[in-house]
Amino acid sequence: MYQLFGSKDEMLAASLERRPPGYEAGLSPGPGEAATPRERILYVFERLARASAEPGYHGCPYLAALVELKDPGHAASRVARDAKERLKEAFRAQAELGGARDSGLLARQLMLVFDGASARSGAGVESLDDGLATSTATTLLDAAGVG
Amino acid sequence: MYQLFGSKDEMLAASLERRPPGYEAGLSPGPGEAATPRERILYVFERLARASAEPGYHGCPYLAALVELKDPGHAASRVARDAKERLKEAFRAQAELGGARDSGLLARQLMLVFDGASARSGAGVESLDDGLATSTATTLLDAAGVG
Repeated sequence: MYQLFGSKDEMLAASLERRPPGYEAGLSPGPGEAATPRERILYVFERLARASAEPGYHGCPYLAALVELKDPGHAASRVARDAKERLKEAFRAQAELGGARDSGLLARQLMLVFDGASARSGAGVESLDDGLATSTATTLLDAAGVG
Repeated sequence: MYQLFGSKDEMLAASLERRPPGYEAGLSPGPGEAATPRERILYVFERLARASAEPGYHGCPYLAALVELKDPGHAASRVARDAKERLKEAFRAQAELGGARDSGLLARQLMLVFDGASARSGAGVESLDDGLATSTATTLLDAAGVG
């Protein structure tokens, strides 16, 4: 294994670079798709709730890598940070399309909710089954003027 | 060390049971204190922002224990879960005093923001210096009718 990857660090980084999570597909509108920016953002939170209900769910692997490694320079931390930045940028782009008053701020707020929901449900101290993450995101979208 | 604590698990649990974080004091009003329930809730987020600006901050130690151990039965996980439950219950009690439409839901939403903000700032992928966590909590308090 180490001959293939060079180091344990690179192996962990490679394991995080496997196919992106399913919600990323929902953020790019298909041809003729009617979804609104608001719907695309909320889709991410619905997808998170579905994932968190699966047996063996332990939260977002990118966030777990960042929390556990506590080392921003680690190869896996860089992969994780890039993935988190992509999601935040997707939120920001959709928020802007949806007419948010401050799309950058809204994207950062949505990331707090996404990572809090992923960490808490992954640790088994919260359940997202009743739409908690989606309804929290909805409140933030409403307040930011994304209709 | 192990003679004192019996096991490594108990040692980790004991290390999490040291004095509670500073924000807990702000949640119990002192004699003659004028703070409103809303102010007491927001104090927790302001305290988190201040803590996250300290050098060497790595996020809430309770959340880190839950994320890293991935074992709800571990002695340290139980200590961490209890601490998280105390904060959620303090939020709920203040939300009720402040006239929240659904104090239980608001408390769970605030915990998503608290844990998301602690994890992201602790991992170095977000900064709370501009009041991000407090303003997000404010939006949720407004929407829940806590004036």
